[in-house]
Amino acid sequence: MLLSGGLDSAVAGAWARAEGYDLWALTLDYGQRHRVELEAAAAVARHLEVREHLVLQVDLRAFGGSALTADIPVPKAQSPGAGPIPPTYVPARNTIFLSLALGLAEARGAGALVIGANAIDYSGYPDCRPAFLEAFERLAQVGTRAGVEGNPPRVLAPLIDLSKAGIVTLGHELGVPFERTHSCYDPDDAGRHCGSCDACQLRCKGFLDAGIHDPTPYAKSQKTP
Amino acid sequence: MLLSGGLDSAVAGAWARAEGYDLWALTLDYGQRHRVELEAAAAVARHLEVREHLVLQVDLRAFGGSALTADIPVPKAQSPGAGPIPPTYVPARNTIFLSLALGLAEARGAGALVIGANAIDYSGYPDCRPAFLEAFERLAQVGTRAGVEGNPPRVLAPLIDLSKAGIVTLGHELGVPFERTHSCYDPDDAGRHCGSCDACQLRCKGFLDAGIHDPTPYAKSQKTP
Repeated sequence: MLLSGGLDSAVAGAWARAEGYDLWALTLDYGQRHRVELEAAAAVARHLEVREHLVLQVDLRAFGGSALTADIPVPKAQSPGAGPIPPTYVPARNTIFLSLALGLAEARGAGALVIGANAIDYSGYPDCRPAFLEAFERLAQVGTRAGVEGNPPRVLAPLIDLSKAGIVTLGHELGVPFERTHSCYDPDDAGRHCGSCDACQLRCKGFLDAGIHDPTPYAKSQKTP
Repeated sequence: MLLSGGLDSAVAGAWARAEGYDLWALTLDYGQRHRVELEAAAAVARHLEVREHLVLQVDLRAFGGSALTADIPVPKAQSPGAGPIPPTYVPARNTIFLSLALGLAEARGAGALVIGANAIDYSGYPDCRPAFLEAFERLAQVGTRAGVEGNPPRVLAPLIDLSKAGIVTLGHELGVPFERTHSCYDPDDAGRHCGSCDACQLRCKGFLDAGIHDPTPYAKSQKTP
């Protein structure tokens, strides 16, 4: 499973655990601004009782081209999902992340990759869509030893058709420790969510729409059930 | 372009240069045993006059599962291409490498990825076949901003149908500095090719069949024109 420390990957992992999968967790440290994500990932990994939690450094700052990996401002108060691809898009990020997960899965003999991508309340990223995940599954069929030998790794995206509220509801049912997850693109020095970036707005709206309390500490007070 | 420091990527890059492409070179330092590869990559990058040569560390030793990234013996004197997938196969290596190249290409606005894969004298790796490269091109169409906007990066594999002898001949015509390239999986302390691993055997046979002198220093003397 790909484990970012965010809400979605935590819920996707909890889903896989409930389905009976043993988990290996892969967290990619790609030079993002908020190291607090990595601490969140470690906490979620412990909660999910994964067999192994690998943190791999892949410094995508060398590429640049994104507000998350270069000196480009993080947009505030946009309408998530409404506009074109936002500047927080990291070029080919999910392609890179799934590829690394594929390498780990092959090396461990795992039969599936689990990713928290979702196509409903997504932020306009091309690599969060079903067509992308299907294309990656096809790639895994032809590009791996396991695939050639007839056991290609599946790509499981249990959140793909869920709204953010649906993800929050599923996570609530599965007992995901929301307070340990981190979504914000632009946290303050104390690691608190800013409440206004794309990711925070999506998160807040998800909890509001689901009618579930958001235990996340915000720098500014938020509307919350 | 993916630049390993080996013969194939040097020839593929020289081909792209001759076709009129400006090049960005990406070398992945994945914890392989032979650091001499990285020095070869830098030398070839200088020869190709690339606009930028990025060396990105991605330590696949954390995954293991290959003679190139873990403590598994490198096989000697096998028949290249004859048997099943050999232990030097690194799980999902070309998927990972092309994904990273895709990220760099998107960030720089490059229109194509260049890879030295070839399917004829290949060592039995699933991710060196045309079906794999086609699946990756499809993935790049649906998974990138450029693809969504109608300009998906192409995947160029100019060596895909060439024998090793054909690659040597093409490189010779293009003026590739063969003496700066490095192929061996198991060099000696002086960085010299061992002459007996899969990669050395392929290389030697390529030069022999092409009737072209191999300027590579070997630890043991080789048959060479």
